[in-house]
Amino acid sequence: MNKSTLKTISEKENIPLSLLKKNIEAGKAVIVKNRLRKVKPLAIGKGLRVKTNANIGTSSESPDIKDEIKKLKVAEHAGADSVMDLSVTENLKSVRKRIIAASKIIVGTVPIYECAIKAEKQYGSFERMTKSEVIETIEEQAKEGVDFFTIHAGVTKEIILNDSFKQRTGGIVSRGGAILSRWMVVNKKENPLYEYFDDILDIAKKYDITLSLGDGLRPGALSDSLDTLQLSELLTLGKLTRRARKKGVKIIIEGPGHVPIDQIETNMRLEKQICGEAPFYVLGPLVTDIALGFDHISSAIGGAIAALYGADFLCVVTPKEHLGHPDEKDIKEGVIAARIAAHSADIIHNPKLKIRDDNLSKARRKRDWKTHIELSLNPGEVKKRTKGLKFSDVCSMCGKYCSLKIMETCPLK
Amino acid sequence: MNKSTLKTISEKENIPLSLLKKNIEAGKAVIVKNRLRKVKPLAIGKGLRVKTNANIGTSSESPDIKDEIKKLKVAEHAGADSVMDLSVTENLKSVRKRIIAASKIIVGTVPIYECAIKAEKQYGSFERMTKSEVIETIEEQAKEGVDFFTIHAGVTKEIILNDSFKQRTGGIVSRGGAILSRWMVVNKKENPLYEYFDDILDIAKKYDITLSLGDGLRPGALSDSLDTLQLSELLTLGKLTRRARKKGVKIIIEGPGHVPIDQIETNMRLEKQICGEAPFYVLGPLVTDIALGFDHISSAIGGAIAALYGADFLCVVTPKEHLGHPDEKDIKEGVIAARIAAHSADIIHNPKLKIRDDNLSKARRKRDWKTHIELSLNPGEVKKRTKGLKFSDVCSMCGKYCSLKIMETCPLK
Repeated sequence: MNKSTLKTISEKENIPLSLLKKNIEAGKAVIVKNRLRKVKPLAIGKGLRVKTNANIGTSSESPDIKDEIKKLKVAEHAGADSVMDLSVTENLKSVRKRIIAASKIIVGTVPIYECAIKAEKQYGSFERMTKSEVIETIEEQAKEGVDFFTIHAGVTKEIILNDSFKQRTGGIVSRGGAILSRWMVVNKKENPLYEYFDDILDIAKKYDITLSLGDGLRPGALSDSLDTLQLSELLTLGKLTRRARKKGVKIIIEGPGHVPIDQIETNMRLEKQICGEAPFYVLGPLVTDIALGFDHISSAIGGAIAALYGADFLCVVTPKEHLGHPDEKDIKEGVIAARIAAHSADIIHNPKLKIRDDNLSKARRKRDWKTHIELSLNPGEVKKRTKGLKFSDVCSMCGKYCSLKIMETCPLK
Repeated sequence: MNKSTLKTISEKENIPLSLLKKNIEAGKAVIVKNRLRKVKPLAIGKGLRVKTNANIGTSSESPDIKDEIKKLKVAEHAGADSVMDLSVTENLKSVRKRIIAASKIIVGTVPIYECAIKAEKQYGSFERMTKSEVIETIEEQAKEGVDFFTIHAGVTKEIILNDSFKQRTGGIVSRGGAILSRWMVVNKKENPLYEYFDDILDIAKKYDITLSLGDGLRPGALSDSLDTLQLSELLTLGKLTRRARKKGVKIIIEGPGHVPIDQIETNMRLEKQICGEAPFYVLGPLVTDIALGFDHISSAIGGAIAALYGADFLCVVTPKEHLGHPDEKDIKEGVIAARIAAHSADIIHNPKLKIRDDNLSKARRKRDWKTHIELSLNPGEVKKRTKGLKFSDVCSMCGKYCSLKIMETCPLK
């Protein structure tokens, strides 16, 4: 990483350059960008603003590339810091290339999806994918410029064969986790991502790719939170983190999922402790299983608390979660909710980030509606949603009984 | 309160009858209902499910009664446990009567609004309202059947004349607080709600009305959280609570407002300590000032944490907060967000309430989409929003790469 990049980041993030360097050297912060790609690098981790990622990508029911490019642009516009292309259709290579070419932000993938798709095509089943195909696919994607990979190397044969996922309430809810678990059971072999982790590290090192160690056994229901499957995997991820750091490979750890609100802090502390304070990338977490249609709100609750206690990177959950393939509106709503969660914790960790909140509140007190809206999280969206609303010296909620106006002219110190 | 009501509540809330009675006797839980009104009583407080209130009511820019009745029905349908009629137009008496007649849930008001409106009409200024008019108005509303009153008795002359609200970032953001503060400054007299608190207690006692002691000095910006204005008022509310309890009047305490995410727990502990564990009714709290257009999400984050640490009653914040008068859609979105917040804490305090989450997750695992949706927080809304989505053996998000399906047929224990 060159000096000017670090300097730019330290200035933008309000963190002393020396501290930023120290955190990066210790693996507590990472700068994500494929060596081959021309894109603004993304810094994630200790001392930095909490970042948000939006998942896009085709599925068998929605294979259109154009839709995914539109969703990419919506995510960028709403302020997502990265996207992951989670396509699982036969055209996924061309989707990925198009997304990488079109994206102004870093792009991540889950290479095991492409391995599975290729094996399906070639052998009729993903169960027959081979080690060499897995490593080849990872290197191919690396050459194309993918900035970070989710690698589910923590789902080991030991855990899958000896623990009982069947008694779980939610089962296995990670696509990568399910593909690899089934592959291991059927083939009676170790997870290739675990067995050949060193080969993957070599590729990551070569292209300066960040590895996001996936949580294939994350709880997908509140009642599965902190169970032995989740914790066994986390312990493995801790060991893999140490191996990666020895080779100079940057690591992020992925986390839950569905977590009761009073277990979020524990989840954050465990990851930081077990994985040497590697940046923590959480999917949600959702604080209830019943918020269908509104899981972006459930996720914002969980994400804010997670970020307060140390999560560094929030994966967007859209209102369509658990229901279907998200559309552009879902992506927008999801990104905005995640950014509210991130910001609510950012202002605690870095008081300079609260200046915007203060200035907005001061503008509100003066009923300077223009500044009020301009300083908001998403002024464009606010303008769209308030079209037709009258903004006079007071707003239409209280009308002439505006507390701010009543007090403004009050003859008091 | 008759025995059968208590028994019904104890069964519905999964709390032993003896404990419910104990909490009510100690003032830690209250049963809200005007003696004259025919409505299902609402139990709020210790050991009980967290309740939600939606604010409706006309403003000078939106004086139409019909709109407010529609909003009442939307709030009921979305699952709000109560509504407050915050109308501030000349027709507010007829609005209130219509709302009380139409409402299937308990109804609260802020009588000082009507006192101000009447004085405006009679004298041209709310600054000229008199003690007797205030007490008369409160009794009139009591006779009409209002179930609970917000009484801003904690905004005292002592605080207003000796502390400096002008250096606040957000100023005074409570309508009631502003009206009373200005009245005190102009008239150099004590707040009538404080000075004649005993008369108000007598009315409350007579009609079995619950008093919700308002927080006229609540922080309306993050930077004002836990300032001397807020805390001085809270100390006064603690004293008033003890006076009310001596007379056998039921008390709820109102709370903030805008609170940094790491100060929510402190706010909850302070209220419980200072006000003898009286039920705590919070407006939000919002965890950032910049989430315009999405303040229902900011509020859900704050409300969930508040509820986890002891808040008993969440006031709905709509997406229109700080922007304008909410419409039906805003009310619906706000109520749903608040209910998600409430539920995420309820399942921690009462594991029986988590059974629904577990059953939904089990249905999801089996891809039993019908049960999945039926068990969700708002099945009607989910059905509306998923119209046209295909639900086959898998959902359209992962399509054939459904982790649940992959593992269902996996030949493992």
